[in-house]
Amino acid sequence: MKIEIWSDFVCPFCYIGKRRLEQALENFPNEEKAEVIYKSFELDPNAERSSKQSMHEKLAAKYGRSLEEAKEMTRNMEEQASMVGLDFRFGTMVPTNTMDAHRVAKFAETKGLDQETAEIFFRAVFTDSKDIGDHETLIELAQEAGLDQSEVRQVLESTDYMELVRTEETEAHQVGVQGVPFFVINRKYAVSGAQPKEIFTQALEKAYSEEKQSPAFETFSGQNGASCTDDSCE
Amino acid sequence: MKIEIWSDFVCPFCYIGKRRLEQALENFPNEEKAEVIYKSFELDPNAERSSKQSMHEKLAAKYGRSLEEAKEMTRNMEEQASMVGLDFRFGTMVPTNTMDAHRVAKFAETKGLDQETAEIFFRAVFTDSKDIGDHETLIELAQEAGLDQSEVRQVLESTDYMELVRTEETEAHQVGVQGVPFFVINRKYAVSGAQPKEIFTQALEKAYSEEKQSPAFETFSGQNGASCTDDSCE
Repeated sequence: MKIEIWSDFVCPFCYIGKRRLEQALENFPNEEKAEVIYKSFELDPNAERSSKQSMHEKLAAKYGRSLEEAKEMTRNMEEQASMVGLDFRFGTMVPTNTMDAHRVAKFAETKGLDQETAEIFFRAVFTDSKDIGDHETLIELAQEAGLDQSEVRQVLESTDYMELVRTEETEAHQVGVQGVPFFVINRKYAVSGAQPKEIFTQALEKAYSEEKQSPAFETFSGQNGASCTDDSCE
Repeated sequence: MKIEIWSDFVCPFCYIGKRRLEQALENFPNEEKAEVIYKSFELDPNAERSSKQSMHEKLAAKYGRSLEEAKEMTRNMEEQASMVGLDFRFGTMVPTNTMDAHRVAKFAETKGLDQETAEIFFRAVFTDSKDIGDHETLIELAQEAGLDQSEVRQVLESTDYMELVRTEETEAHQVGVQGVPFFVINRKYAVSGAQPKEIFTQALEKAYSEEKQSPAFETFSGQNGASCTDDSCE
């Protein structure tokens, strides 16, 4: 079972949704059959890197509210986060640009360390109030995920993976993603938003039972379909 | 429409099948809607790099035949190749290990140059009798595809993308690939082997008509599916 998740590391419901999916997978008897793939999505591609404004100041300015009202807006999210065991700290969170974090995450994927990296980036933003737009911070976090410091530095100093990030964002629009998180199972079932764990369980069960029943593909063939195996070509 | 092709650069029917698919796509009115993705598959992961044996000597030894009989075995493939406009030269072809070529192809994918690279690698093997197990040859070919020489050298000197190649090979076995080329359309329809162009056309038409009719996904949702858009989180 293939689960693709479009998300952004500065999106609170993406982290909450990630945890809810993980909890659904934990209780799912076929957990080991699920392959989770993180797809890039920048909520604001023009976001300033390493903003001096706090998250609350940013929200207050955006919606013409007082700082106290902005805090009220985030309180509900903090509560939802704590219900899945997450510790959100909007008061000190650093709004930033996430292109570089997505590029490092794509690099991590080539090393099989994408899951670790995604979790560490989310935690850095929402719990540890780190600025994941800052290269030194990204290098430190990536190293924690198991990546090689100097390789990550090389990626950051280049434009590597930028095109891949953009391609995944284009694909998001093509498949109809309007907000994140957006979960796609076996390219057939979708869960939009940080739905309750039960919804993820339903979708997983539906996809799994179908996958189990049906042969993988409907095959088209003629008479001359030659192919090669490790033993011969015929 | 998403077309995934598992293939190996030293597999003759993979190159022939690639061309037949391309010809089917050319005549397909919705060509621009097709995204082609090359997936790694090594026919022989233990193959010697830069073999001193010719292809005919290798075949003769493997099947206990004379050199002349081995030549006869490849003549049919050369004919099939010429019918799709390809010039196969088994007489001078260099058998080799393809792990490094696959790694470079995966690197090319991150730069959006995977299509160019695949075509150049196939042509190098079957028409130009080049050794794609040799690093300098790979660097030269990759440069021709538009990649940066020194970046490709770095990839080759590391183990970058090896895990990704292996993951794609594991995935091949999971979806039931027994030989290559193996084509999967929208993760639903499969074409196994270098089938005639008409078979590819049938599969493309079926997948496209279905894609057009149905909504992208069946969506699971509850009441609290919060998500973030570029404007807000709610």
